[in-house]
Order: sequence, then C-alpha cells, then structure tokens
Amino acid sequence: MSLEFSSIVDAASILDGFAHVTPVHTSTTLDDLSGSQVLLKCENFQKTGSFKFRGAYTALSRLKLPERERGVLTFSSGNHAQALALAGRLLGCPTTIVMPDDAPKVKLDATRGYGGQVVVYDRDETSREALGAKLSKERGLTIVPPYDHPDIVAGQGTVAKELFEQVGHLDFLFVPCGGGGLLSGCSLTAKSLYPTCQVIGVEPATADDATQSFVSKTLVKVHNPPTIADGARTPSLGELTFELVLRFVDDMLTVDDAELLEAMVFLWQRCKLMVEPTGALGLAGLLKKKPGGRCGVILSGGNADFPSLLNLL
Amino acid sequence: MSLEFSSIVDAASILDGFAHVTPVHTSTTLDDLSGSQVLLKCENFQKTGSFKFRGAYTALSRLKLPERERGVLTFSSGNHAQALALAGRLLGCPTTIVMPDDAPKVKLDATRGYGGQVVVYDRDETSREALGAKLSKERGLTIVPPYDHPDIVAGQGTVAKELFEQVGHLDFLFVPCGGGGLLSGCSLTAKSLYPTCQVIGVEPATADDATQSFVSKTLVKVHNPPTIADGARTPSLGELTFELVLRFVDDMLTVDDAELLEAMVFLWQRCKLMVEPTGALGLAGLLKKKPGGRCGVILSGGNADFPSLLNLL
Repeated sequence: MSLEFSSIVDAASILDGFAHVTPVHTSTTLDDLSGSQVLLKCENFQKTGSFKFRGAYTALSRLKLPERERGVLTFSSGNHAQALALAGRLLGCPTTIVMPDDAPKVKLDATRGYGGQVVVYDRDETSREALGAKLSKERGLTIVPPYDHPDIVAGQGTVAKELFEQVGHLDFLFVPCGGGGLLSGCSLTAKSLYPTCQVIGVEPATADDATQSFVSKTLVKVHNPPTIADGARTPSLGELTFELVLRFVDDMLTVDDAELLEAMVFLWQRCKLMVEPTGALGLAGLLKKKPGGRCGVILSGGNADFPSLLNLL
Repeated sequence: MSLEFSSIVDAASILDGFAHVTPVHTSTTLDDLSGSQVLLKCENFQKTGSFKFRGAYTALSRLKLPERERGVLTFSSGNHAQALALAGRLLGCPTTIVMPDDAPKVKLDATRGYGGQVVVYDRDETSREALGAKLSKERGLTIVPPYDHPDIVAGQGTVAKELFEQVGHLDFLFVPCGGGGLLSGCSLTAKSLYPTCQVIGVEPATADDATQSFVSKTLVKVHNPPTIADGARTPSLGELTFELVLRFVDDMLTVDDAELLEAMVFLWQRCKLMVEPTGALGLAGLLKKKPGGRCGVILSGGNADFPSLLNLL
C-alpha cells in the first residue's frame, strides 16, 4: 500500500464542484501574537463540517459500480460517519455506519439526517470489528475505513493542495493528527509542490502515539487516551499513514488540553470561527512553536459537542 | 439631515482596500429549514468583528484635516467603540471613548488594544452626555455618534451594496435593528439598486421601539430593555435613521430571546459561524417569517460576551 501525488491531483478533480473550496482566513491579532504570518484553512466550513468529506467522497467515487450499488460500511462515531453518509447519498451508494449505542444523540441524528443507516451496538457485548465483519460479509458491503486507505488519504491531501493554490509558498504547515489521514495526505502534497515547506503534525499530549511512532520509527499504540480532542483519540497511525508520516512529515508536536482550549477559544472569540477541539490542534501547535515566517494552519473541523464543551468553559 | 445613495457609493470607495469584503455563506440545512434560499452576509468577519467599522472609518475619513488631527469622541460600550478606535488608529485620528466603569473588561481591553483612549465614568455620579460634552468642549473633540449621522449611515449602507454585488437580486433582506444605522443605510441601498427587494428590520421583542415607531410613525422610546441582544438595547431610532426607516423599510418584525438564542446556536453549530446575539436577529426574523424566495440575511457582528452567554446556554 502506498500513494503517489498524482492520486491527490486526481482526487482534486473528483471533488471539483462537489466539495466546497474552503476559505482562508487571516487575523492581524493572531499574526502579532504568534510573530508569524498565519493563514487559516477553514475546513470547518467543508460539507458535513470537516475535511472528512473529501476522503469519503473520493473513496466512494473510486468504487466499481457493483460495489457502490451494494453499499459500504464503516465504524465511526465521529466526523467520518457523517461525511460517508452524505457522500453515499450524493453518489447513490447505501451507507451502513456502526456506532456505539452511547454515542451522542446529536451525532446519531446527524448521520441519519445525511441518509446513513446507523447500526448501534453495545460496547460491553460486541466488538465493532466483529459486528462490522459480520454485516459486511452477510450484506456484501465494502468496508471504508476512516483513514488507513489510499483513496481516503488522497482525498484528505487535497486540503493542502487547495491551500497552496490559494496562498502560494509556506514556510510551515501545521496539521492536526489523529489517525494520520489528513497529516499524511497533506505532507505528501507539501513535499510534492513546495519541498522546503516544513510540515508539522500536532497531537494532544495524552494521545501522542504518532509522536512516539515518529521518533521511534516503530508503530506505537495508546489506549483510549483522555483528551478533549475526541477526533485524535485514535489508538495509532495506520499502516499507510505511518509510512507516509515517516517519509514526509518534518516534525511532530504535542499540546496539552489547556493549550488546545486556549487556541479554540481564541478562534471563537477573535476570529469568529467555530472550531471543535481537534480542529484547533494546528493552531495550538503554532502558538506553542511560534516559528515566524508564512505559516499555514489547517482548521480541520467544526463539529463541537456543545453540551460537553460548555461544561469545560 | 438626509442621505442620498450617492453618499453610500462614495463610502464604498473610501472603504475599498481598508474594510474587509466579507464573505457570503450558505447552508443547505438552513435552506431546507426555512424553505428559502438563504445568503448569509458575514459582517462578523469584518474588522473589529462587526459592520460598525464601515461607518466609523467613513465618518473619520470625511472629517476635515484639522478636526481629524484634534481627534474625536464617542460614547459606546459596544462595537462602535472598538470600530472607532481602530479607524482612528488607521487614519491618524486620536479617539476618546467614554465608557461606564462597569463595562466588561474584555470590551475595555479591546478598545484600548485598538488604540482608543478610554475615559470611564461612574453611572451613578455622572451622565455620559454631560461628561462627553465637557470633554469635547475642553479638548476640541468632534463627537462621532454611533448611528444618527449621515456619514455613519452611509458607511453601514455599504454592507447591502457589497451583498448585492456578490449575489445579485434578492426577494427579501433581513437586517438587525438597534439605533437603525445599519437598517436605514441598507434599506436606502436596496431601494436604490433593487426596488422590489423587501427590506425587513428585526428587533428584540422587549426592545421594539423601532417597530412601534414604524407603525405609529412617531418616534417611540424604550428604557433599558432587557434582552440578550445588547447591541439592540438603544432607546430609540435617531432623527435621520427614523426618517430613512419610514421611507425605505417595508416591514419590521420582532423576535423573543428564545428565538434569538435558537438562531444564534444554529449559526454556531450548523454553520460554524460565531455570531453575537444581536448579530443573529436577522436570521431569527427569517426563521420566524419563512418567506421563501432568495433571502439575504445580514449577520451584523460576532463579538459575543462569552462568560454571560455560557451562563445562558
């Protein structure tokens, strides 16, 4: 399993007219605060509220017609679920989403609202993998994983391609990292288009599996890490994303939840951008490193879970 | 005191390159919910976080050089204060802002941060008008009021001009109303460019002075109305804004705080747009009326006072 930049260029053609070209925002207050020229790539304004739509739509578009007609299945209680559900609706591909029965109601509703068939399971009685494998086999559904798949990574890599087309050369690019789909795709894009751009992956300090993996060059796992960045609670990078991160990422950085919260609230209050905690990882990393120069920051999503965030604030 | 559309056209030239051209956002979920095609004009992304920058910058630009060099004074604890402070800094015009000593610290800090000289007063001991008049006379400062002034209204009217340039014809335009600067300027623009566009002003139900004035054709005042829309707590329209509202506005609408809160949270959660309560008045009005057709909605600002909002939610 590997990936060439040509696949990202092709994904961008697939997405043309179907995904939003998301805007780039700037803030003089932020420039002053960070000592850098900051360009915020607003994937919180992407369809379904996160970059995940790019990968999901690309992956379903590349399925052979019989597979697409039979349908796809995924496990996710997060942004990939909603993204896959909408991509499926737009492409006439039935989607089955396996979610735990204690997932937030708003996420269950949103996924159903986009047309996904949600199958809930009891965390104590079944593993999602076992249930998914059973359903996939019985119903002939193709499994579309949330990040460790060449078509998913190709779609996510279009975020950086679009950003470079909008703003040109960057000295640094800060990218949130969970399972590494966004980070690996965007780092491949950066090194293909502007090889001198330093790509920095940013993780929560308690979920630093990718940082440990990057340093040790061995795939490290964490178990259910406690962090407000729910999109970065993935146990580890995937096979493909790990390989790409090792080849194309320049450095990894971790931030604690307090730094993350501060970055998120700054985006709300000063930039008027509603971003979820995971979506603010890149900015938190930038504000910690303050590298100077022209810095791209990917705001990966805006699907904040309000009730729990309001408790935190 | 009156105003011609040519003054708004001139204000747009003055602002060209100095104010942001703010984006227009759309949402299919919102279109489905309202049965209309909704175009959200995002003045929350304007400099200083609200449309007020347009009027303030226009007014200071039109001052004669000696007046500008002596400086200006205003009374405001809201968005006009920050807007005037930044406009003054950009134009080399000293600004004095009279604010109550119990104004939120974040607003005092923001106004000072933009370079305004803040003079605080004790609400119980002094009236702001008396203090302002004294300072203005002693120091030779020109008073720049927050809305009842032709140059301020001309600047605010550029919001609608820019929106029409971006989206063309509209069947309806929903505009928040406090002192009426934004509403009167935008209604003059609408009737000059697209006379069939119905302009609807939206007020909080408890601060419905403009609605009462519109219906009775007599200037009605309210005293310190209780509403979460702090930008619409102004006691009444001004002389100029009342005249223009009577001539150019098609209808007024009121919404209660629950409806306003719902519209604001919808913008946060579904559109990822951070808007303050007053800034969501237009959308709350649209969601109440659901008129169909192409509807422009002005999101007037994003300077939410978080601590008090979080208490509400």
